[in-house]
Amino acid sequence: MNGAQSLIRTLVGCGVDVCFMNPGTSEMHFVAALDAVPEMRSSLALFEGVVTGAADGYGRMADKPAATLLHLGPGLTNGLANVHNARRAFTPMLNIVGDHATYHKVYDAPLNSDVDGLARPMSDWLRTAQSGTAIGHDAAEAVAAARTAPGQIATLILPADISWGESSGPAQPIAPAARKKADDATIKQIAEVLRSGQKATLLLNGYALRERGLIAATRIGEKTGARVTCDTFPSRLERGAGLPSVARMNYFAELAADELKDTQHLILVGTKSPAAFFAYPGKPSDLVAPGCKVYTLATPAEDAIEALEHLAEAVGAPKTGYRVEPARRSDKPTGALTSAAVGTAIGALLPEHAIVVDEGNTEGIFTPYYTVGAPRHDWLFNTGGSIGLGLPLATGAAVACPGRKVVCLEGDGSAMYTIQALWTMAREQLDVTTIIFANRSYKILNIELMRVGVEGGPGARARDMLDISRPDLDFVALARGMGVSASRPDGAEAFCAAFEHAMREPGPHLIECLV
Amino acid sequence: MNGAQSLIRTLVGCGVDVCFMNPGTSEMHFVAALDAVPEMRSSLALFEGVVTGAADGYGRMADKPAATLLHLGPGLTNGLANVHNARRAFTPMLNIVGDHATYHKVYDAPLNSDVDGLARPMSDWLRTAQSGTAIGHDAAEAVAAARTAPGQIATLILPADISWGESSGPAQPIAPAARKKADDATIKQIAEVLRSGQKATLLLNGYALRERGLIAATRIGEKTGARVTCDTFPSRLERGAGLPSVARMNYFAELAADELKDTQHLILVGTKSPAAFFAYPGKPSDLVAPGCKVYTLATPAEDAIEALEHLAEAVGAPKTGYRVEPARRSDKPTGALTSAAVGTAIGALLPEHAIVVDEGNTEGIFTPYYTVGAPRHDWLFNTGGSIGLGLPLATGAAVACPGRKVVCLEGDGSAMYTIQALWTMAREQLDVTTIIFANRSYKILNIELMRVGVEGGPGARARDMLDISRPDLDFVALARGMGVSASRPDGAEAFCAAFEHAMREPGPHLIECLV
Repeated sequence: MNGAQSLIRTLVGCGVDVCFMNPGTSEMHFVAALDAVPEMRSSLALFEGVVTGAADGYGRMADKPAATLLHLGPGLTNGLANVHNARRAFTPMLNIVGDHATYHKVYDAPLNSDVDGLARPMSDWLRTAQSGTAIGHDAAEAVAAARTAPGQIATLILPADISWGESSGPAQPIAPAARKKADDATIKQIAEVLRSGQKATLLLNGYALRERGLIAATRIGEKTGARVTCDTFPSRLERGAGLPSVARMNYFAELAADELKDTQHLILVGTKSPAAFFAYPGKPSDLVAPGCKVYTLATPAEDAIEALEHLAEAVGAPKTGYRVEPARRSDKPTGALTSAAVGTAIGALLPEHAIVVDEGNTEGIFTPYYTVGAPRHDWLFNTGGSIGLGLPLATGAAVACPGRKVVCLEGDGSAMYTIQALWTMAREQLDVTTIIFANRSYKILNIELMRVGVEGGPGARARDMLDISRPDLDFVALARGMGVSASRPDGAEAFCAAFEHAMREPGPHLIECLV
Repeated sequence: MNGAQSLIRTLVGCGVDVCFMNPGTSEMHFVAALDAVPEMRSSLALFEGVVTGAADGYGRMADKPAATLLHLGPGLTNGLANVHNARRAFTPMLNIVGDHATYHKVYDAPLNSDVDGLARPMSDWLRTAQSGTAIGHDAAEAVAAARTAPGQIATLILPADISWGESSGPAQPIAPAARKKADDATIKQIAEVLRSGQKATLLLNGYALRERGLIAATRIGEKTGARVTCDTFPSRLERGAGLPSVARMNYFAELAADELKDTQHLILVGTKSPAAFFAYPGKPSDLVAPGCKVYTLATPAEDAIEALEHLAEAVGAPKTGYRVEPARRSDKPTGALTSAAVGTAIGALLPEHAIVVDEGNTEGIFTPYYTVGAPRHDWLFNTGGSIGLGLPLATGAAVACPGRKVVCLEGDGSAMYTIQALWTMAREQLDVTTIIFANRSYKILNIELMRVGVEGGPGARARDMLDISRPDLDFVALARGMGVSASRPDGAEAFCAAFEHAMREPGPHLIECLV
C-alpha cells in the first residue's frame, strides 16, 4: 500500500471522509488512490479559494474537518485567504499540500517554493511528511490537531515520493484533546459581578451560539439584567422562531463602542475582547469603555456552553420561561426590488432548517433583521473579513447538510473573488440558492473612504477604483457559463417567484438583484 | 503631504507610473492620493491574482516595474501564485501591501495576519514601513530593489497610519545596481571548450532571448557547431521572421534528457542547470547527462547579451551571415476546428509586433511551431508553472504596449483560475484577443496521471477529478458576463474570420474553440 492510500485510509478511519480538491501532477497518486478508498468523497473545484472556503463551510456545519488537497506552494497560497477566514471561525480543517519529491527539491524546479514558510502563518499545526512509515500516523495526528477545540487549521505537506512510496499502512485514530472546562472560581466570580446590579454585557461567539448556549445566556441575562450580545461576524449562529435571539455588535466601530459605553463588566464567552474591525484616524481601536472590567468566562477552546449553564445556575436563573423569538414572517414584498425587498422576501419565504451564508455586505446588512422570526435556521458569517468566502462556504455547507436548503447572500464585488464556486455547485448539484446584491460598486469601500477622513473628500480617480459598473457584470451570464440556472427579476414580486421556485426545486440557482 | 502621497510621488519619480490594484479599507488613503498624483495610472481588478499577473506582464514588456496594491494578508496571498511566476521570470515588481495601523495590530482584529511572514517566501526584498519620515525613501529603495538585475520582487508593507500620517515628502530615485559583467576568464574558458569540437549546448533564458542575444548565440552556434536552445518556458522570447530562432527544451523530462544526452559541455546563459519540471518514480530529476560538464557564461543577474557577444568574438564568429527565420506563413486552415487548425490560423494571421501570451498548455503546445515564420513578435510563457497566469499576463502586457495586439492562448481549465481578468480587459478596453482551447479536461493531468505510473491505471474516480466537462463551461457566456465580446466558431474558416475580426477591431475579444 502506498503512502497516498495509507493517508486516505487513515483519514477515513478518523472520520474525515470529504476532500475538496484542485490537484496537480505532484498529487496524482493521491488522486489515483481515491479509487481504492471509495469511502472518501472527493469534490473538485476550479480554484483553490473554493476548495478551502468549502472546507470551512463543511467544518462549520459538520463539526468535523474536511480535507483539502492543494497543489504545491501556489495552490496553497490561492487557498490561504479562505484558510484565514476558517481560522478566525475556529473551523476544524485539514489541508494536504502536495510538494515535490523530497530528492527533487534540491533542483529548485520552476514550481518549487517554500511551502512550509507559506503555510506557517495560517496553520495551527504544520508538518511535512518525512516517510512512508510515518504517513499514517502523521495523518492521524493532523486530524486530532484539526479537531482540538475550538477547531484548528492543520496542514500536512505531502512530498510526492512519500505519496507514491511504500507505507506501513493506515494508522489508528488519535482522540483529540477534550474541550477544557471553564474554571469554577471564575464562574463564581462572574456570578457575583452579575448579582452586583452593575451594568454587565455577555459577549458570545463560536460554540456558545448554539441552542444550549443561547438559552443559558438568555436565562442569565433575564435573571441579572445583563445584556447578551455576540460578535459582529460569528462563525455560526443558530436562530429563528423558537430560539432565544441575541443581537450582533455593530460593524461600525463608533456604533459598537456606543453599544458598550455603559457596560461596567464585559464577560467574554468563547471570544476575545472586542476591537474595531479597522483603525481610523483619531478613533479608538479598543471598543471597551474606559474603566470597564473584562472577564473571560470561557476561552474559545473551553466549554462555553457548560460554563454558561453553570453560570445560569450560579445566578439562580429559572430553567424555563426565558423569551424565545415568536414565529412571525413579513408579508411578501411588492414593488421595486430594493435591498429591503430582498430581505423582506427572504424573511417571508425562508424554509425551516435553511443555512444562510452571509456575504451580502452593505446591501445585505439588514437581512438578518427580516429573518429573526423565520423558522429555525443557521446563519454563517464571514469571520475573518477576507472577501470571497460566501460562495465557497455555501458549497461546503451544502455538502455537509444534503437535506437542507442553503441560501447564499452575496455582494456583486465579493462574489467575483471566487465565482468559480458556481461550477462546483452545478457539478455536485448542490442545493444552494445564491442571491447577488448587485449595486455595481464596492459600496462598503465608498463608506470606508468617507470614514477614514480623506481631506477634501475623495476625487474622481479614487471613486473610480471603487466603481465596478464599468462594465456592468452580468451574473446571469456568469452563472449560466458555469451551468447554474439564473434569473434577474425586475421587481419584488418577480424576486419572490424566483426565490419560491428555487426553494422548491433542488439544485443550484442564482438570482441577480439590481438594487 | 501624507505618507500615501509621498509614496506615490516617489514611485512616479522613480519611473513607476502604473499600479494594478484591488484595495480595501486599509488602503483608502493610497486610493485617495491617486487624485493628487495624476501621473500614476491605476488599474482595478476584481481579484488579486489578476493584479499580480498583470504586473508580471507589464514588467516583462516594459522592462520596469509596475506597482501592485493589495489588501492585507489575504489580499497578498490571493496574489502570491502569480508573484511566484513573476519571480521565476525575474520580472521587476513592486508589491505594496496595506496593513492595519501599527497601533491596531495588538488587537488582532479579524483581518489581522502575519503579512511579513506571508510575503517573505515570495519576496526578494521585503520591508514594513515604519514612519512617515522614511516612507519616501522606503519606496525609492523598493523600486531600486525591484529593478536590480535580473529583476526582483520587492514588497513594501504599508501600515494604514503610515499612509494617512504626515510624511517628509517624496524621496529621490535610487539607481539600481548595474547589471554585472560576466567574468572574462570564464568567457575565455568557454570559448576554448567550444573550439574543442566536442558536443556543446548553449541553454538560454531571460535577457539572453532578446534580439541581440539570439543573434550572438546563433553566431556562436554556427561557428562552433554548438546547439543553441532555451528553457521550456522562458519569460519573454523574441521571435518570428527576420530573427534567429532557438528551439525550446521539451517539457517532458524523458524527452528533454534525450535532447541533452550527447551534450558533453552545457553552457548556461542567464539560466540554471535544467531539471525535470516534476519528479517521476524511477526517473532522474537532473536532465544533464552523466559526465557532462556545466559552465555558467552568465547568471540571470549578469549581462548575458554582452557575454554572448564577447564569446562570439572569442570564437571568431562572423558578424553577419547568420541564419534568420525566413518570412513564411501557413495557408488559412479549413475544415474542423482542431488545435492544429487554431495554431495554423494564428500562424497565417498573427500581425506584426504581436505579443503572444501562452498558457495554452496541452492543446496549445504546437502553436509556437506554426508561428515561427510569422512577422516578428514576442512570446511570453508561464515561467513558474502556477496556472492562472495567462489572462492576467495578457492584461499587463497590453497596458505596457498600447500599440500592439496581444493574443492570449488559454486552456479552459487554466483560464478559470483568474477568469476575472476579462473584466479588467473590458474596463480598460485592452487590445487582447483571448483564445480558449476548450478540451473540457485537465488534459495535462491525464497525461501526468499516466506518467507518474499509477498501478493498474487510473480508475473512474481519479479520472473524474480531471474532468471539467460536468458541467461544460461556456466561455462565451462568461466573457459576455464580464463585458468582453465573444464567439464560438464552429470550424476553421469561422475561426479565421473571428480571429481576423479581432485583429482588425481594437479592444478585448474572446474566441472559444472546442477542440
